[in-house]
Parts: sequence; C-alpha cells; structure tokens
Amino acid sequence: MEQLTPRSTNYAQWYNDLVLKAGLAEHSAVRGCMVIKPYGFSIWERMRDDLDRRFKETGHENAYFPLFIPKSFLSKEAAHIEGFAKECAVVTHYRLKTSEDGKSVIVDPEAKLEEELIVRPTSETIIWNTYKNWINSYRDLPLLINQWANVVRWEMRTRLFLRTAEFLWQEGHTAHATREEAEVETKLMLDVYSDFVQDILAIPVIKGVKTESERFAGAIDTYCIEALMQDGKALQTGTSHFLGQNFAKAFDVKFTNAAGKQEYVWASSWGVSTRLMGALIMCHSDDNGLVLPPRLAPIQVVLVPIYRKEEERTAMVDACQKLVVELKAVGIRVKLDNDDKKKPGWKFAEYEFKGVPIRLAIGPRDLESGTVELSRRDTLTKESVSINGLSERLPLLLEEIQQSLFERALEFRNQHITPVETWEEFQSVLKNKGGFISAHWDGSTETEEKIKEATKASIRCIPLNNKPEAGACIFSGKPSSQRVYFALAY
Amino acid sequence: MEQLTPRSTNYAQWYNDLVLKAGLAEHSAVRGCMVIKPYGFSIWERMRDDLDRRFKETGHENAYFPLFIPKSFLSKEAAHIEGFAKECAVVTHYRLKTSEDGKSVIVDPEAKLEEELIVRPTSETIIWNTYKNWINSYRDLPLLINQWANVVRWEMRTRLFLRTAEFLWQEGHTAHATREEAEVETKLMLDVYSDFVQDILAIPVIKGVKTESERFAGAIDTYCIEALMQDGKALQTGTSHFLGQNFAKAFDVKFTNAAGKQEYVWASSWGVSTRLMGALIMCHSDDNGLVLPPRLAPIQVVLVPIYRKEEERTAMVDACQKLVVELKAVGIRVKLDNDDKKKPGWKFAEYEFKGVPIRLAIGPRDLESGTVELSRRDTLTKESVSINGLSERLPLLLEEIQQSLFERALEFRNQHITPVETWEEFQSVLKNKGGFISAHWDGSTETEEKIKEATKASIRCIPLNNKPEAGACIFSGKPSSQRVYFALAY
Repeated sequence: MEQLTPRSTNYAQWYNDLVLKAGLAEHSAVRGCMVIKPYGFSIWERMRDDLDRRFKETGHENAYFPLFIPKSFLSKEAAHIEGFAKECAVVTHYRLKTSEDGKSVIVDPEAKLEEELIVRPTSETIIWNTYKNWINSYRDLPLLINQWANVVRWEMRTRLFLRTAEFLWQEGHTAHATREEAEVETKLMLDVYSDFVQDILAIPVIKGVKTESERFAGAIDTYCIEALMQDGKALQTGTSHFLGQNFAKAFDVKFTNAAGKQEYVWASSWGVSTRLMGALIMCHSDDNGLVLPPRLAPIQVVLVPIYRKEEERTAMVDACQKLVVELKAVGIRVKLDNDDKKKPGWKFAEYEFKGVPIRLAIGPRDLESGTVELSRRDTLTKESVSINGLSERLPLLLEEIQQSLFERALEFRNQHITPVETWEEFQSVLKNKGGFISAHWDGSTETEEKIKEATKASIRCIPLNNKPEAGACIFSGKPSSQRVYFALAY
Repeated sequence: MEQLTPRSTNYAQWYNDLVLKAGLAEHSAVRGCMVIKPYGFSIWERMRDDLDRRFKETGHENAYFPLFIPKSFLSKEAAHIEGFAKECAVVTHYRLKTSEDGKSVIVDPEAKLEEELIVRPTSETIIWNTYKNWINSYRDLPLLINQWANVVRWEMRTRLFLRTAEFLWQEGHTAHATREEAEVETKLMLDVYSDFVQDILAIPVIKGVKTESERFAGAIDTYCIEALMQDGKALQTGTSHFLGQNFAKAFDVKFTNAAGKQEYVWASSWGVSTRLMGALIMCHSDDNGLVLPPRLAPIQVVLVPIYRKEEERTAMVDACQKLVVELKAVGIRVKLDNDDKKKPGWKFAEYEFKGVPIRLAIGPRDLESGTVELSRRDTLTKESVSINGLSERLPLLLEEIQQSLFERALEFRNQHITPVETWEEFQSVLKNKGGFISAHWDGSTETEEKIKEATKASIRCIPLNNKPEAGACIFSGKPSSQRVYFALAY
C-alpha cells in the first residue's frame, strides 16, 4: 500500500490521493465526470437508503422526471436562469451518421433539434411544468415528491465528489396550499438532513439561512447545513429552499382553495448530493486513509485469520466462521477475509486504508487462549480481548466509535468558531486559524462582496439559533443586529 | 373513475389508458421522454430492490459511470456503432447565454465542444475504456459490476414504458479471465432474470438465444427471456450478452494470466429496464385496471372502513388499526384508507384500478359479527370472512394469488405456442391466433428477413431447451435441424 501525502503537507493532495487509493472514485475519460467505484458506491448507497427511508417516513414518495429540459423552460423563472442555466450541457442533435470515408461517425447536420434540450442542472422547471397538470384543487395538495437522479453542471474546475460536471443527488419538490405549510416543509427537510448528517455521518452541522447573494436561484429563502472540514474550510452539506410562489407563477400552477378561489401554489425544494462523500472523507479521515463512522460503514468489522501451516487453517477458518455467524446475528456487517492469496499484513493495511471501524485478527495462539486482537480504526489502538462475549461487546463498541467520531469532530468544530470584533482580527483568524468566524455584518450585499473579494471568505449562513446582538459591521463599521458565520468554503 | 377502453376494442388504447389512469406514467413536455409517477415508481422501486438483492447475492457490486460518452468511443467496436449509436442525443455545446434583446437564452456559439458527447445509449464503451485501467493481472478478475442508470435512445415512435427516448435500467458489465467463465456468467444472469420475472412478476418466460440478426451490437451471443402478452405479441423482458473479447480488443484491455502471458479479457453484459413495467401490465391486467402480483404490489391489502354516523367511526377505526398492526406484524404491506373526504365506493374503484391484490371492507354489521368482506382483485370475487385468523389466512391467500396469476399466464402462454408445418399455416396462425409459432427455419438471415418483411414476425429466440429435430424450413423448404420461435413482438 503506497503512502498518502500527509494532510499537513498538502491537504488537497491528501484528499485526492485518498479518494483514488481507497477505491472511492476516479476521473473518467469525459472531462469533469467521475467514475464512482464499487467501494465508494457502496458507501453512497448506504447514505441513499438511509435518506430514502427518512423521506418516506416523512410522507414523501419517489418519482422520475426527464433528464432533458427544453431550453425555453429555463427562461421562465427570471432569477433561476440568471443563477443556473448558463454552464450546462446542451443537446442540439439527435443522430449520428457514418462519415463519407466510412471510417468514423459524425453528427448528422440534418438531425438538428428545433429547440435545444438542456441536460438538467436541477429540475424545478420541468417538474413545475408537470405539476401544472397534476394540481387543480386543494385536495391535490400537498404534493410531496422526491427524485434520485444524475444532474449536470458544466464546472470548469472539478474535484472528485466535491465539484464534478455530473453528480448524483436527490431533489425533493413539494407543492402546498399555504405559505406556512411550505415553510414548515422547508424547515422539516433541513432537520431531516441535519439529523442524517449528524447521526449517520457523525458530522456536526450548523443550521442556518443563506444571505440573499448565496440563495438558490429562484428561492425566497435558502436554508442550509454547514460543516467544518479538518483544514478549517466550510462545506455546505445540504440545502432546503422555500420557493414561495415563484415557480408556480412562472409555470402558471394554480389551485382552487376550499373557498373556491384560485391561488398560486407554494413550493419547496431540497437536495443533497454525492458531495456528502467529500464531507465524510474530509471530516474524519487521517494520514492512514479513510475513517468511516460505524453506522455508515459497509463493513463494520473485518476478521483476519492468521496461520502458517495448513493444519492450522481448518480450525482457524471454522472458528472465524462461527464468529461471523454470531456477529451477523446481532446485526453487525462483518466480513471474513480468508483469501489465501493475500498476506495478513497486506490485509491489515487495506482495511485500515478503507476505514473499516474494527479489525479482529486471530492467530493460532489466540485460538488456544480464546482471544482475538481487536484494533480500532479511529484511535489506531489495539487490545487483546476474549472471543466470548464479542457479540455483546462489539455493538456497544461500534456505537462508542460512532459517538466518539462525532464528539471529536464537534470539539474541533466548536474550537473553530471564533468571534471577532475587528477587521484585522477577522483577517488574522482567517489566515492563521481558519474555521467559522462569528462577526457582525451590516446586512448589505455590497459589504459581503467586498469581504469576499478581499479574503475569499463568504457568509456561510446566518445561524438559525442566532441571538439578536447589537454591534458594528467588522468591515463597514455600520450598525448590525446579529453576528453571521464567515468562512472559506469548498 | 372513468372507464377503460376494453382490451377487445383496442388493446393499444387500453394499455395507454391504463398507464395514465392508474397513475403509473405519462408523457412529458420533452418528446419521447416520460414522467414515471409515484405509484408507477413505487412498483419499479420494488423491482429494482429485488433485482439488486439478487445481483449482490451472486457476487456483483454496483458502481456508477459517466452519462456522457465521447463520440470517438462509439466507433471503436465496429458492430457496436452499426447497431447502436445512430439515433442518440448529441451534446455539442456547454454554455447558454442571454440573447441580445435580453429576453431569452441562446446557445453560446463560442462554447462548442471539441469532441461531441453522446448521452449513453448503453455503456459498454465507456466502461471498457475504464476497465483498461482496472485490469492488469488475472488477480484483478473477475470484475462483476452493475450500474443502475438512465439511458437515451432517440426513438421516433414511443410508447410509455415500452419504448421511450429516456428509460431507466440496470446494466451489468463483467470481465473474466476465460471464455468459459464469461459464458457461465452470461447464462447465470439469464437465470437470475428468469427467476425474478417468473417468481416476482408472475410472468412465465421462454429462455433462448437470439439469431445473428437480433443479436446485441457487439455480442457473440445474446441470450434472452421472452414473455407473451395477452394480445398474442411477444415482449423481450431481459437480455444477457456474451461479448467474447470484442470490447477488450476495441479498448485494448489485456491481463497477465497465471502463466505470465498477456491475453484479452472476456466479457458479458446484461440488462433489464422499465420495459418490465410494460410486460407486467400487459401480462396480468384487465378491463377494470391494473392487476398486481402480491409479491410485487406496493400495497398488498387495503382496508376500507364503512360508516355513516360519527359514533360508528371511532369503534371502526380502532378495529381497523388493530387489524393493521396484526397484518403488518406478519409482514403484509397493508394500507388503511380512512380518508373521510372520499366515499367507500370511490375507494373500491380506485384500489381495484390500481391492482391492490386484496381489499377488505368493514361495515358496522361486520364489526358486530366479527367479519370482513374480502375481495380478490385477480378473480373479482367477494366473500365474508372472520376477522379472527386473518393474519394466518392472508399470507396464504397472497401466495395463492401469486401462484394463480402465474399459472393463468402460463396456461395462456402454453396455449399460444403453436407448432406449424407449412407457410400457409404460419400465416394463418399469426393472423388468427397470435402467440409463439414453433417452426422450422433454414438458419439463414435472408430467410429470416423475408419472413419479417412478409409478416412482421421475427424470430424471438431459439429456445435453450430445444430438441434437435430434422425438418424443412417453412419458408424456403431448405433442410432445418431445429424449430425456432417466431412471433409479432413489442
């Protein structure tokens, strides 16, 4: 197993090395598009399944809408097109033909589409155009629909999982009879995301609302959860948008209310993506490779038997298989690796690199004494423990590791929320410490932009639990009624 | 609930009406692309999850490859481009810009791609280009990978689920060290499909191999499962291809074998799609709407309470909720519909239309006598049964319905396999009876094409369990060694 570039040497390189070497993803032959490799995909699948269960428990259904969006749809919501539709993949033709020399294929100029189709960068427009036919009366509301899909945004500078031209995500699109109901939904889904990211990914998040300039194109309010990576940069891990009646007006979606009057429908949309894989990696992993929280890990416990002689093998494999059955019976995702082609040392390095939370190694002496060597991936500690009782001990230990990862990340995050009072302090903390900077801001987009130009830091959010506090904007000195969180961000 | 066009009047219209009115899918604003509605998607999800489990049990892992394929990749496998790449969505540009009058968006002519990208019609080329980097040694083999994805084929005449420009599917792509292993895999996956379609969808299938002209573009052999619809037309419900070394040669994918020698890798690919939804509908449903096999049905049992007075309501809902808990405890997917805004008669029609296998209705008198009215969707029969014991009775009844649907379809299918000896007989059976025609064929593509031109019937497959039998081709009179299955097909 090759060494990773240490985080302290080059964090970006460490990240890229880890994604490649742990078999999570790689760049493809298509610029900006990634291949999600089997191990990476098995982690994404577990995220998807857990989220999907939460969506269904909160009353949502899945559906599927077209990959393509007619170009004219994108112009219908003015703010939406401004923010979104510019960098995208445009389908202009629908046929290839063999070239005249017969050696290659060329685009058939006669097969030009009357109206170009855009590969969806997000689906509000095609979905609201569809909802128009589904909604007539208040009895048709609410519509609580989610879609798991691929989307394309033509990014010029891409990074595996964090920013790719094509990525996988889910997008919820809900329709409601009242403003209040749509706002409740928007916040409910922020809570669903927040609970998921904290409880399963073990990543602490700050819930907040975006400033006007950071809002989703077409939204009235964008709520977000913001996480902190080990290099002190913030990463937005989910957003939930209150869209008001903007898309209903753009696509003329009205309903007859209980009083028989026509009204425009209220909307929310919300999404998380394969970016969560990036957050997961950058929050917990170390210079030895990936570190996975047990609730998410595809393999929670790996069992590596060690033997030299063939006569040791049978007894060893028997003992291991018995243990596997016991551990599976208590719901542990356990893997026995008795592949003779690979040496124990190679396996140790491999599972450490892939972030398996607990490794159990059993040698002939262990078998005699009824013990195993138990290694924790998060602390890299080892101890000899009794084989008896592992089916009680391991579920508790997995939970302990889950909690410990969360608390470690929470402590780091909390140590990296720094209140500052002056512009000098702001710049110094940003440069020397990183993390979230809690500072007064005058509320203007102009100031926000000047701060960003000067430092690259953006306002990540106005925290939802914010207390009113009179102060002066760190940049303009103008009066401010609350602090907001600034940070450098992915 | 509006009436469906009866099957006997217009089968195609019946199908389209049913898909729309049962809330399964509808046409979208994008030509040829469908919207899969929540109820339709919940059925597809159950297919997907069951298949996914079977793939994993047979050692496969999921991964994700790019949506786009560079145009030049398609030319690399000669047969592949001939059969496939012509009717497809071509991305030529990556940016839109605001028009000069500021009123609309136009494609930015400066953002033209150097090489056009094709929206994947199937992924052999991009995947084998990726496998090149993953495979070096026999130790890297086999690679057993599946992808769930959307694909696009620019169909001019589309029908919901059966033939759409965009559809959802899975595509397995495996790489092996030997020809034998790749062939075993190809046949294994045909069995996985066959078991799934027969056991879950309750659709009997014929396993066979395609003739040369019906083979997948780039395959050495295409295996298929063919099902029969109620109108006597065949529908291919799954294919598994032995690709030989064709794609390995096209993308130069070699491995070092155990003896240290370089060899090209052997391949299979296999897929099923949302077409299965069309097969499901056309195999079992009737003039009253959808009929779903219990193992697949998202709702297996619906419970409709009937009451007039408010004081009846509480006792009724209590009794129903108690029953729901009991039925859920034995693993039944049960829905209690106590929506007061809708009348029982409307609900009866709705769940009948949506194909829920068992309906239970409970009125005040039933409550007194401890009975429910039980209606079977497949037979449209009703009986009064005791509430006590439903949690034992219903699982058995659901299995009975599952078997009964399969047997009904099997009987119909078997009655519609007609051996014919002459060309006159062939034409007469095709016109008056439909179904599969078992006939001798001289083995030439020329004859196959002439028969297709004359009758539109194609050779669906050469059945895998075929017995050698000397005879004369029904069309050319030339000698033949076995019978093949002809049919009109979707």
